[in-house]
Formats: sequence, structure tokens, C-alpha cells
Amino acid sequence: MKPSTLALALAAAAFTLPAAAQHKPEQVIHYRQSAMTMIGWNFGALGAMVKGKTAWDAKQFAVHADRIASLAPQVLEGFAPGSDKGAKTEAKPGIWTNYDDFKAKDSDLVKQTQALSDVARGGDETAMKAQFKKTGEACKACHDKYKQE
Amino acid sequence: MKPSTLALALAAAAFTLPAAAQHKPEQVIHYRQSAMTMIGWNFGALGAMVKGKTAWDAKQFAVHADRIASLAPQVLEGFAPGSDKGAKTEAKPGIWTNYDDFKAKDSDLVKQTQALSDVARGGDETAMKAQFKKTGEACKACHDKYKQE
Repeated sequence: MKPSTLALALAAAAFTLPAAAQHKPEQVIHYRQSAMTMIGWNFGALGAMVKGKTAWDAKQFAVHADRIASLAPQVLEGFAPGSDKGAKTEAKPGIWTNYDDFKAKDSDLVKQTQALSDVARGGDETAMKAQFKKTGEACKACHDKYKQE
Repeated sequence: MKPSTLALALAAAAFTLPAAAQHKPEQVIHYRQSAMTMIGWNFGALGAMVKGKTAWDAKQFAVHADRIASLAPQVLEGFAPGSDKGAKTEAKPGIWTNYDDFKAKDSDLVKQTQALSDVARGGDETAMKAQFKKTGEACKACHDKYKQE
């Protein structure tokens, strides 16, 4: 996504919530778990590069970052109201009782992943690694509070 | 994605294959199933509009189409060699014995989903519905041959 698409991405995350209304709770849960799996897969590829487990490849980094920036705005509808139960889930009930706080954390994830994609297009390794860290912190801020370990 | 990014998307689908090498077969299988779930979720939202089950919303259509165009190039690495076994899967073994044919079908999916995103940005309802159909045919061409029902 281009930098100018951040507002669109945030708006999209909000206005596509009705899509979740067509689904049963277990389908919503399965969808959010799929989104997390895909984000984790791509973030893991970045982490491997950042930690030196795989060779540094700025272009490949940018591909994964771009994917994550596209995936992040798809997360929120996977936590639609009513999807707290229905299948095995690591999502804590506090998500739906503190939904505004949860949404704020989700919005930060969208912003940080967009910044990651933008920075990656610049190709500056130091900046990419710094934004990778900030993105990981956005993941962790939400997991610490709302994910059962 | 912009039209000019199709070549990049196809290249990305190829050059990120090594990412799969970091994973166990069951992780690759789980990843591809997640990609399919997310594509299905977003494609289902389009189908609901096309079939008149939900109100036509060209902007929402474009959001889902853009997501699908980003997800499609992520599919191939979910079918990395060696991931034919390792977890419950609907993928037929023929995928890996006819890998060039499978990759050609995957490339067609990437092309059709990119066209779907491009057409959706134009906002022409008739063209969007026509390209939705062509995209569905690209899904079906592969499922008919390589997915166990």
C-alpha cells in the first residue's frame, strides 16, 4: 500500500465489519486465526532476516512487509461482537468488554504495519529493523492484554 | 495493487518460496489453509453482493478485491514441495507431480485477482461482476483438479 492509503486502510477496517455479520461465530474465529497465522508467517520471515537466521534481502523484506500491511486491516472484523465464543480461541473476553481499547490497539497495529511497508520501500536496513521492532511491540501490546498464552 | 505491480506480484510469489523452507510441513499446510480461508472470506463477501444477498457497495467490493489480490500471490508458498503430507489436507498429491501445471493455474489466479482489483477501482458494476465470475473460474479450475472434496 502507498502511504496515502493508511486512512483508507483504517476506514476499510471499520466499514467492512458488517462482512462478519454474515458468518457464524466459529467462522469468525477461524477467520481471525487465519489472519494471525498469515501475519505470523510473514512476520516470522522478517524476524529471521532481522536476527540473521536467513540472509538479509531488502526486496523480500518489502514483499513480506507489504503483505503484513494488507493483512493487518483485516484483523478487526475477525473480532466482531459475538465471536467471543463458538470455537477454541485464545482471545480473552476482555476484548469485547474493552472494545474501544482493543480497537485502539488494532489501529496502532495497522499504523505500524503501514509504516513498516513504507519504510521497507525505502530500503534503509537500519530503519527497516527499527520499524520491525516497533511493529512487534504493537503486536505484543495487544497480545499481553488480550491473548491467552 | 496497481496494474504495474502484477509482474512484481508474480515474481514475489516465486522468490518468496524459500520462506516455506523454514517451516515444518504441518506449518506450511496450516499456512495455505489460512490463505484459503482468508480468500474465501473476502470472496464470499463479494459473492454476497453479486448475488444480491447484501447491498451492492462498490467501495466495499474494491476493498475485498484488493485484499484478494494481495492474498493470491501468497498461496503458492503454501504448497511448497514437501508439504503434501504432515497434517490433514484437501490438497491432492497431483499438485506436486504436476507442479508446473499447478503453478500455471496459480499464476492465472494471481492475474485474475489482480484484474479484479483493477476493475473494482474503476467502479463499473457490470465489469466488476464479470471479473468476479472469471476469478471464480480460476479458483474452480484448480479446485476441480487438485482439491479433494
